[in-house]
Amino acid sequence: MTTTVAGFVGVTGSAGVKAGVADLSLVHATGAATSAAVFTRSRFAGPSVRVSREADTSGLRAVVVVSGNANVATGEQGLADARELQAWAAGRAGCSPQQVLVASTGVIGVRYPLETMRERLAEVPAVGPVDLGSVARAIMTTDTRPKVASRRVGAATVVGIAKGVGMIEPDMATMLSFVYTDAEVGATELDAMFRRVVDRTYNAVSVDTDTSTSDTAAVLASGAAGPVDPAALEAALLEVGTELVRMIASDGEGASTLIEVRVTGARDDAQAKLVGKSVVSSPLVKTAVHGADPNWGRVAMAVGKCESETDIHQEDVRIAFGGLETYPTLPTPERRAELEAYLANDTVVIEVDLGIADGAFTVYGCDLTEGYIRINADYTT
Amino acid sequence: MTTTVAGFVGVTGSAGVKAGVADLSLVHATGAATSAAVFTRSRFAGPSVRVSREADTSGLRAVVVVSGNANVATGEQGLADARELQAWAAGRAGCSPQQVLVASTGVIGVRYPLETMRERLAEVPAVGPVDLGSVARAIMTTDTRPKVASRRVGAATVVGIAKGVGMIEPDMATMLSFVYTDAEVGATELDAMFRRVVDRTYNAVSVDTDTSTSDTAAVLASGAAGPVDPAALEAALLEVGTELVRMIASDGEGASTLIEVRVTGARDDAQAKLVGKSVVSSPLVKTAVHGADPNWGRVAMAVGKCESETDIHQEDVRIAFGGLETYPTLPTPERRAELEAYLANDTVVIEVDLGIADGAFTVYGCDLTEGYIRINADYTT
Repeated sequence: MTTTVAGFVGVTGSAGVKAGVADLSLVHATGAATSAAVFTRSRFAGPSVRVSREADTSGLRAVVVVSGNANVATGEQGLADARELQAWAAGRAGCSPQQVLVASTGVIGVRYPLETMRERLAEVPAVGPVDLGSVARAIMTTDTRPKVASRRVGAATVVGIAKGVGMIEPDMATMLSFVYTDAEVGATELDAMFRRVVDRTYNAVSVDTDTSTSDTAAVLASGAAGPVDPAALEAALLEVGTELVRMIASDGEGASTLIEVRVTGARDDAQAKLVGKSVVSSPLVKTAVHGADPNWGRVAMAVGKCESETDIHQEDVRIAFGGLETYPTLPTPERRAELEAYLANDTVVIEVDLGIADGAFTVYGCDLTEGYIRINADYTT
Repeated sequence: MTTTVAGFVGVTGSAGVKAGVADLSLVHATGAATSAAVFTRSRFAGPSVRVSREADTSGLRAVVVVSGNANVATGEQGLADARELQAWAAGRAGCSPQQVLVASTGVIGVRYPLETMRERLAEVPAVGPVDLGSVARAIMTTDTRPKVASRRVGAATVVGIAKGVGMIEPDMATMLSFVYTDAEVGATELDAMFRRVVDRTYNAVSVDTDTSTSDTAAVLASGAAGPVDPAALEAALLEVGTELVRMIASDGEGASTLIEVRVTGARDDAQAKLVGKSVVSSPLVKTAVHGADPNWGRVAMAVGKCESETDIHQEDVRIAFGGLETYPTLPTPERRAELEAYLANDTVVIEVDLGIADGAFTVYGCDLTEGYIRINADYTT
């Protein structure tokens, strides 16, 4: 798998937050780049999100990430710390601070160890050719594995990295994803296609319905490979994003099964997404999948609780698991055995057809296990 | 505790669904009564809800409940079965079928054992003075204890019963609650006060965010005790309802702690409810309480994810547990020890002040434990 992108250099190192492992990464374009970025809508968004939102998000040159400390709920001091990190990265990247996106993930309510951090930042080696796989590793917190996906688009490459499992140290989930490409693409066009991709990928995954204060996704394009077909580029971005969110869902805290909910026959795609999220987020559906139980009644319940959708009629709904219908045709004993065998897979696809029109959407999640409880209850701050 | 109400008689017995325990109850007024009822808004509402919704909900005389089978997703046959049960109850109560509310709770997708049920119904003893405590027991499914609350209002009595723990047999939660009073009150007035009470009680509790296909709450007033002060009656209904939902939350599947979230300082009560539900439903908050961890960061996250509420500003929010502030004044080590001791209680109160205006709302829930996973994953259909 290609994990380098022409026109980008970088480095991983220590910011003094975590002992013994890389907790800092910097990736930057060697010249001008176009970019697009989206951020958490949380009312408790942290200083990193705040300074990044105020940056030039269509002309970003660099991304700097600290893992192990989210720098959230740290007040004016935390904001000053985020700006200092941004300025350091700008100095290394040879660009203005306004061209640097800052992200931070980990414990909240605790300031960076600023004195140590200053010392360590001074010691970070010079940037050079960068393996984005090592960057994916440096942004991990409780992820059990780094998450990297790449595609070719004509002469260009798209490489995406992500982190996020549902929970971090004793605090909350942060999903970060950064996509680098050497395709040449205008910032306005890139922004439009990235927002469509985000809607179908990062906004289509749920581990536990909780929304982080630090979620960030961005794409940077160096242009080094020249222009490519825009539709092909968008398709590559969608494939990379989809692969990353599937990795996020299957590495969800305590998860043993990736759940994919495909909703079809909806009034429109938005309705399909609403219903899909209701199903994939339902604790009763998630525990049923964990128990390898083809409990279509819980899927029906989760569809039913979309109370605002008065054009959904139970007589018109069809529910299946992996293509095996469970409603309205209830499973025979033989079919039931097939269903149970299917539910033992690592990936379970739940299909819901609403029987209204042609709207469709697929969402991703994971099962709910004792492991999730242990990780989030037994570990105390 | 008073568990009888003048003007009401009843009986418990067998409908042939569960072996060895009462699975049928009938309570009816001996004369005309006023009433009010609310039902699940699920798009997969079952036949019992459908026939009850079509009944004369302001002049109900009788309530018949079957536990152990929800009679949901049973098609036209299930609808016919619900009507047959309604007709049987009307015969016993000496009223029209239109004056009978039908409720059913338990396994879904399975028809009643109609032949057996007909035989058993014929054998149900005649109605007589009824202990509503025994009715509360007859409507239980996986509840670990019956739920009854009562209050005096002048010369009148209000007795409420409820069931619901988050999950039933292998299927979904059903919350049923029936309140009986001998106060004399007009149907229109009763309906208005009951809806206000329902909003503050049954609609303010969440075990796992999943909504049943069968949820039903109703109040019947026989008038036998004559008129009472309407404000006092509404207060009694609110107290009974609150006591019942606290019982439901603390008996939530696998629950070890009742969580009460009191939101104040909101723009209005609706905003306070929205924020309260976000906090009390958050898996990360629920697991933190289970771990006795005063993790205010997760509360902040759950407030923050109310993205539509753009008038919430993190600088104005205050968060406390049992009166012990955790944000913006972060706990000292001494305070932290106090907080941890507080979180070991059976009931944990989380206070969130939004610092906007005077809107307030309290919601109820429970912690999320390994027990919930075991009940819902390890038990398969």
